Amino acid sequence: MAIAIPVKALPLSFVVHALAVAGAVLVLVWNIYFRGGLAWESTNKSLIFNAASDGLKVCNGPNGSRIVNLMSHFFPPPKQLHPVLMLIGLIIIGGEAIISYKALPFRKEEKKIIHLVLHAIALILGIIGVYAAFKYHNESSIANLYSLHSWLGIGVISLYGIQWLYGFVVFFFPGGTAAIRRESLPWHVLFGIFVYILAVATATLGYLEKLTFLENSGLAKYGSEAFLVNFTAIVTILYGTFVLLTALSQGPVEDDYSYSAI
Amino acid sequence: MAIAIPVKALPLSFVVHALAVAGAVLVLVWNIYFRGGLAWESTNKSLIFNAASDGLKVCNGPNGSRIVNLMSHFFPPPKQLHPVLMLIGLIIIGGEAIISYKALPFRKEEKKIIHLVLHAIALILGIIGVYAAFKYHNESSIANLYSLHSWLGIGVISLYGIQWLYGFVVFFFPGGTAAIRRESLPWHVLFGIFVYILAVATATLGYLEKLTFLENSGLAKYGSEAFLVNFTAIVTILYGTFVLLTALSQGPVEDDYSYSAI
Repeated sequence: MAIAIPVKALPLSFVVHALAVAGAVLVLVWNIYFRGGLAWESTNKSLIFNAASDGLKVCNGPNGSRIVNLMSHFFPPPKQLHPVLMLIGLIIIGGEAIISYKALPFRKEEKKIIHLVLHAIALILGIIGVYAAFKYHNESSIANLYSLHSWLGIGVISLYGIQWLYGFVVFFFPGGTAAIRRESLPWHVLFGIFVYILAVATATLGYLEKLTFLENSGLAKYGSEAFLVNFTAIVTILYGTFVLLTALSQGPVEDDYSYSAI
Repeated sequence: MAIAIPVKALPLSFVVHALAVAGAVLVLVWNIYFRGGLAWESTNKSLIFNAASDGLKVCNGPNGSRIVNLMSHFFPPPKQLHPVLMLIGLIIIGGEAIISYKALPFRKEEKKIIHLVLHAIALILGIIGVYAAFKYHNESSIANLYSLHSWLGIGVISLYGIQWLYGFVVFFFPGGTAAIRRESLPWHVLFGIFVYILAVATATLGYLEKLTFLENSGLAKYGSEAFLVNFTAIVTILYGTFVLLTALSQGPVEDDYSYSAI
């Protein structure tokens, strides 16, 4: 069974770009407006407020919890680079890299460079984003690598790196033989789609995990921030869906051959 | 770009069946051995132990948390039908339904009945599983429909139902014209794959959410149960991956035509 979509890629790619802008705006509003901004270094990480903001247990004995919640309200945590880098980097720029063969009006060789460079940027931002999560955990005495989100995240960033290196070596420099390229291509596409779906799934796990921590520390379950984060997750899923629809649809000029005639 | 896998479906389908058994065993071990069994009705739902076992805040003021954690250890919650029904029903039986055209040595008309009936069983078990989650929440005073898991879950069960009804009407009874069947088939496959990926993603959100609640109530982050649940999630993802690989690979006899010659 071959999967192909009997629809032109170009209009689908406009939906992708629109959802990219929507997702980027949502994650920035969340982290700058609701979570107190972005920072790489900050002195503002007293134990109690990190505890209150990232899932360590909060006392709700008489008056205790009130005080903690008020503090986290007025002094929100500064380490919010992780979700911004992962969404805008790995998911959004990575998605644009995937559809570059279908969405752009250039020659194949040019589109290959764009595909390669955008995926490199996505991967680098993703690696910095993963590092930011460890840095935040370590400076706030939060345990590392126990959750499904972290396990899958390590898997995704490793597979993404392997996929990029394989693509670079086989399809760009030094480049494999024609037979190796022809044999590799369907697996390159298939494995790329697999890693991308896993990346989007890992992102949704991240939204849920962070929001559950915040809700356990007193954030309203039906409040503005909770809804904002859930909607950001849904926009992320829609973005990933339209990226894959575009990748499976009919590209310009060469039609079905824009990938295969490498 | 058409996606098809130049590999025989049959050996892949054996991996699917093996992962199905592994996943079913893991989710049963988790819920019967670690979570205290399965029940539809139970008097054993005192407020404190539901609070301790499903994410309501636990006091860790002096001695308070000890008492709560001990109680939840000796009197675990009985409402564990939801994960069992969703995994074995919607995901595992649903996955077997998807690959039935590729994995079975029968005639097309027979495989269509099996596809239809297995998806009906998956859907019915899924609906009962969703109802079990609401029943547990309502009887334990836990909020409904605030989390991403619940939002996507409602979406998945609705889309699964729509997909089943459309397939029944167009491909089985009364059946559309030849033109409608031919036009519908690629979208039926594509939409089915989309809903199934979303179902697997929603399951992973469920594992993470439940485990985060348990860990917030004192379950060890690196303990046996936490690792068991994370491994169950990874087996679920591998199962979904092999289901889709099988669906995209080369079926028996008619080869690429086992779907399209409806």
